[in-house]
Amino acid sequence: MSPEKALGRVRDELAPALGEGVLVTDPDVVGAHSRDQALWCPDDGALALVRARTVEDVQATMRFASRHGLPVVPQGARTGLSGGANAVPGCLLLSLERMTRVLDIDVDERTVTVEPGIINQDLKDALAPHGLSYPPDPGSVAISSIGGNVATNAGGLCCVKYGVTRDYVRRLRVVLADGTLTTVGTTTTKGVAGLDLRGLFVGSEGTLGIVVEVTLRLVPTLPEPLTAVATFADVRDAAAAVADLMSSGAQPSLVESMDGTTLRMINAYRDVGLDEDAGAMLLVQSDGSGDPATARAEVEAFSGFAAAHDAIDVVFSEDPADSAALVAARRLAQTAYEHHAQSHGGGQLLDDVCLPRHRLPEFYDRLDEIGAETGLTLAVVAHAGDGNTHPSIFFDAADPEDVARAEDAFDRIMEVGLELGGTITGEHGVGHLKRAWLARELDDGNRGIHRAVKAALDPQGILNPGKMHAAL
Amino acid sequence: MSPEKALGRVRDELAPALGEGVLVTDPDVVGAHSRDQALWCPDDGALALVRARTVEDVQATMRFASRHGLPVVPQGARTGLSGGANAVPGCLLLSLERMTRVLDIDVDERTVTVEPGIINQDLKDALAPHGLSYPPDPGSVAISSIGGNVATNAGGLCCVKYGVTRDYVRRLRVVLADGTLTTVGTTTTKGVAGLDLRGLFVGSEGTLGIVVEVTLRLVPTLPEPLTAVATFADVRDAAAAVADLMSSGAQPSLVESMDGTTLRMINAYRDVGLDEDAGAMLLVQSDGSGDPATARAEVEAFSGFAAAHDAIDVVFSEDPADSAALVAARRLAQTAYEHHAQSHGGGQLLDDVCLPRHRLPEFYDRLDEIGAETGLTLAVVAHAGDGNTHPSIFFDAADPEDVARAEDAFDRIMEVGLELGGTITGEHGVGHLKRAWLARELDDGNRGIHRAVKAALDPQGILNPGKMHAAL
Repeated sequence: MSPEKALGRVRDELAPALGEGVLVTDPDVVGAHSRDQALWCPDDGALALVRARTVEDVQATMRFASRHGLPVVPQGARTGLSGGANAVPGCLLLSLERMTRVLDIDVDERTVTVEPGIINQDLKDALAPHGLSYPPDPGSVAISSIGGNVATNAGGLCCVKYGVTRDYVRRLRVVLADGTLTTVGTTTTKGVAGLDLRGLFVGSEGTLGIVVEVTLRLVPTLPEPLTAVATFADVRDAAAAVADLMSSGAQPSLVESMDGTTLRMINAYRDVGLDEDAGAMLLVQSDGSGDPATARAEVEAFSGFAAAHDAIDVVFSEDPADSAALVAARRLAQTAYEHHAQSHGGGQLLDDVCLPRHRLPEFYDRLDEIGAETGLTLAVVAHAGDGNTHPSIFFDAADPEDVARAEDAFDRIMEVGLELGGTITGEHGVGHLKRAWLARELDDGNRGIHRAVKAALDPQGILNPGKMHAAL
Repeated sequence: MSPEKALGRVRDELAPALGEGVLVTDPDVVGAHSRDQALWCPDDGALALVRARTVEDVQATMRFASRHGLPVVPQGARTGLSGGANAVPGCLLLSLERMTRVLDIDVDERTVTVEPGIINQDLKDALAPHGLSYPPDPGSVAISSIGGNVATNAGGLCCVKYGVTRDYVRRLRVVLADGTLTTVGTTTTKGVAGLDLRGLFVGSEGTLGIVVEVTLRLVPTLPEPLTAVATFADVRDAAAAVADLMSSGAQPSLVESMDGTTLRMINAYRDVGLDEDAGAMLLVQSDGSGDPATARAEVEAFSGFAAAHDAIDVVFSEDPADSAALVAARRLAQTAYEHHAQSHGGGQLLDDVCLPRHRLPEFYDRLDEIGAETGLTLAVVAHAGDGNTHPSIFFDAADPEDVARAEDAFDRIMEVGLELGGTITGEHGVGHLKRAWLARELDDGNRGIHRAVKAALDPQGILNPGKMHAAL
């Protein structure tokens, strides 16, 4: 079907089935909604944008799409980093960002039920007056939606102690490829009635169905942590200190690492006074599960490991404002990278390799080699306690040779990740960006299961085609 | 194919592909391995028993079975309670119980890799010298295998704080229906490369593939808990105290409930001196995540909730031996039930309904009605902190009318569970026993996904047929 004919059908058949103002065909608006934050991923050819307000809008869209075999690209806040929300030719963009309601806060059972478009931080804010907390805190906590967090099984800073999105999802309501609305999972604490379809949809990046309602388990308000900051001459020493800390059985609530390049870029963006002569900084927090003595013992244990690995300096902070400022500085890294890139050719690509923690020092060695051999600047932040690294590659986006070098560096980082027993993506997902690499990470049997499950749930292949499954 | 012809092929084609002594066709041995611990589930017709010692034995068995379309029933220690390991006509029983090796303990990354036949307690014992612990502790901890725990996503007593089997599985190696060996999941802390197939296999009850290797994350040795014991005149008050405790944000490490009938049956089996005049007893532990003050604060908070709900008595125990004795008494419940049944007609059926915690008092009301209307004795233990109840029904197994009443009671308990927002199974699984009820719990769309996924992974339907998926 030609795009013109398809668009005609969208106007004639789909529009009347949707709520007022839900369908948008203005090319400028459609174009502005055609991509997330990933580099190097195509985003052309969307037919129209559906700004769903209700479950029925989503069902009507999927019924229409399946009737005509049209691709559908589900979208949340489009803050993803792998092109998962990017348009594909002839697609309908199905945005959930206007479905933002909190449907139920169950204080007795400590669960919350929300629509998928609610922003993670807005959910946290809604829960705070009830003394409840939803821990997962991706870097994008202030701008990403719970639906997007579910689609990518988002992680974050606190997951070293508190786990990732999947660990909190109890029940999902999902619209399937043919428009059927179904419920997977149970709101109860436990439940083994049938296959874990709840877990299957979490992290499926919109390729198996459209999540329209999410029930999450909650925990009591997280305790204020004690913070330790350690600087090192060599990022490898910092990594070794983290590996020792984590194998000791400590349960820190945050373990973030910034290399020297990152420290300098953050200071250059906003003078927050980080020690930019250092080769690395570790930010370690412990909340002691509410017990200050446990928290103190844990940060002191960390201090010992840091000293044993030649830390330049370790300081503690008990002042919540100081601690928050340090975490805020860490959260500036991505913006600082973009700021640096703006004056250095414009190109910055963020990777997301997760490794066994004790392989981190070796990984940094290999990154140095990649930087030296490509001549590109690399900078690394890491959720080090989880072994989840985010190397950034800086390049001149206007220079095809530099772009090719950056592509090469990006690939080699993932290759090293696999070689050291890691994975190509710890939390950002596959999307378009890493689809070829997914095929390298998974073995034949696993790829076969992916193909079979995808075909089983989406026989026409209309749900977010060209993404996660495309190279399997 | 007739059973004789099939058995001939087993001897001619399969036996030479297996290790020495792996194939057993002696009808007595095959018969003795044809069932787990469930009641009311057929177990006839197994052709032969494969006692796999290697991954290759499992692959050879699946290749043979898929070539001839023969059903395969995977088995661990056959301690299941839903008939999941029971024979089906013409099947090969594929036992993993001899694959018991610990393949790797990675102290740095805090993971362990094992073969599936290892008994849960044996794994715990192997980890203890390393200061590491694998928390999940089903009632069957001393006799059930890790493979079986994975197959059913087993829970236990500690999961109120420490979670269930799925929360600990990092990576699985699985032999698929056609004999292909594949790896799902990653040993790293985080990973989002592709669909969560790891989670899909956990709890799939041998219907999607045969798990031949399991990598589990570990935690430091669990701290010694402080124990509180409270007695109540009315089990509803006990349940209400638990609901209040759990919604308070407390994080007890064990919250077990026994009703008066259970207390009396345990005393009758072995005089452990439980207060058998009470209507219910709660056993609550807190380990304070290692901090004694937190543990004390939590059991004292519990004491307050118990008092507010008319507890007869609350006592604390700081003596680990006393605490262990109390937990051991709780763990006697199932044996005490069997002991009671032996002198009361022989029939005892254990249910496994999980509910929202604040609906527990109402659930006990409904159980009283079911007991009164059927004239049968019911007794209830519960992992109350999770809302996971195990009502037992006692009946005269030789009296068809009593059996019919027991069946009716069993069904009505699940019906009430669903009506109160719960699930038909919190941790025992579906197997044969609850296959019809699974179809009632899941909606149309969800049943459709089950059918599609099952067909995708097991197109011939040879993996544990007649079980979980049979009525969907």
